[in-house]
Amino acid sequence: MHNFQTKTEWRHARECRVSARDNPDLTVATPPEFGGPEGTWSPEELLVASVESCLLSTFLYFVHRFGLALESYSSTSTGAMEKTSQGLRFTGIDVSISVVVADRDVVQKAASLRLKEKLEKFCPVSASLNCPVRIVFDVTPRDAMDG
Amino acid sequence: MHNFQTKTEWRHARECRVSARDNPDLTVATPPEFGGPEGTWSPEELLVASVESCLLSTFLYFVHRFGLALESYSSTSTGAMEKTSQGLRFTGIDVSISVVVADRDVVQKAASLRLKEKLEKFCPVSASLNCPVRIVFDVTPRDAMDG
Repeated sequence: MHNFQTKTEWRHARECRVSARDNPDLTVATPPEFGGPEGTWSPEELLVASVESCLLSTFLYFVHRFGLALESYSSTSTGAMEKTSQGLRFTGIDVSISVVVADRDVVQKAASLRLKEKLEKFCPVSASLNCPVRIVFDVTPRDAMDG
Repeated sequence: MHNFQTKTEWRHARECRVSARDNPDLTVATPPEFGGPEGTWSPEELLVASVESCLLSTFLYFVHRFGLALESYSSTSTGAMEKTSQGLRFTGIDVSISVVVADRDVVQKAASLRLKEKLEKFCPVSASLNCPVRIVFDVTPRDAMDG
């Protein structure tokens, strides 16, 4: 079993300080649309950031395991929160991933490894949510970028 | 509907940069027990931080709504991730909350409002997980602290 520990301290207004291990402290606040300040991470954004970075972390695990040559990886994500009869809930998180690899051989290898399906199954944060995490996964060879 | 958007960019090794709006960028990496560096937020810690700060944000909503005089609020959280037949999953998050209010009248008012039950029901991040979020909720009057 792995334990992950955090501490939270209310500071003032809608703002708190969150800490873990010797990581840099995080300032977190209610999002602006619910009365919080601009320019500060909200709990809702941290949830989306957690999903998005865990997908990358899971992807890197497979990159190392299968010896893929990775040139770059970036993603954009949108988490949708809606009012339901039970209160506000996340109803889905969409993640669009763009990967660049060395050449077409690596693109084919990535395709044969079914990496998108592996991410959907093995990302521990995504798998711990009760709303769908929908992934669009695009792998491009570097030479296609040069052209 | 509310949308929360983030972006992630792989930097090197097991580390990425996560951004949202004009918030300060976050450096996030695989946790040390899975080959990542020390002193860097992991996706798993961000998930626990998201739950913990969302509980505070939800609590502050009720504090304002019911006009409670809040002196301080702090919490500690532990998220447990375990290997299951489906892969690694969060199996529970325990959050211990300590609240200090002005006096015993506010303690009684807080008790009558069933704030713990309200948090369990209305925290949108907790309610979007498929593992239990267990809350221990302690409200103390300031005069008890002085003594």
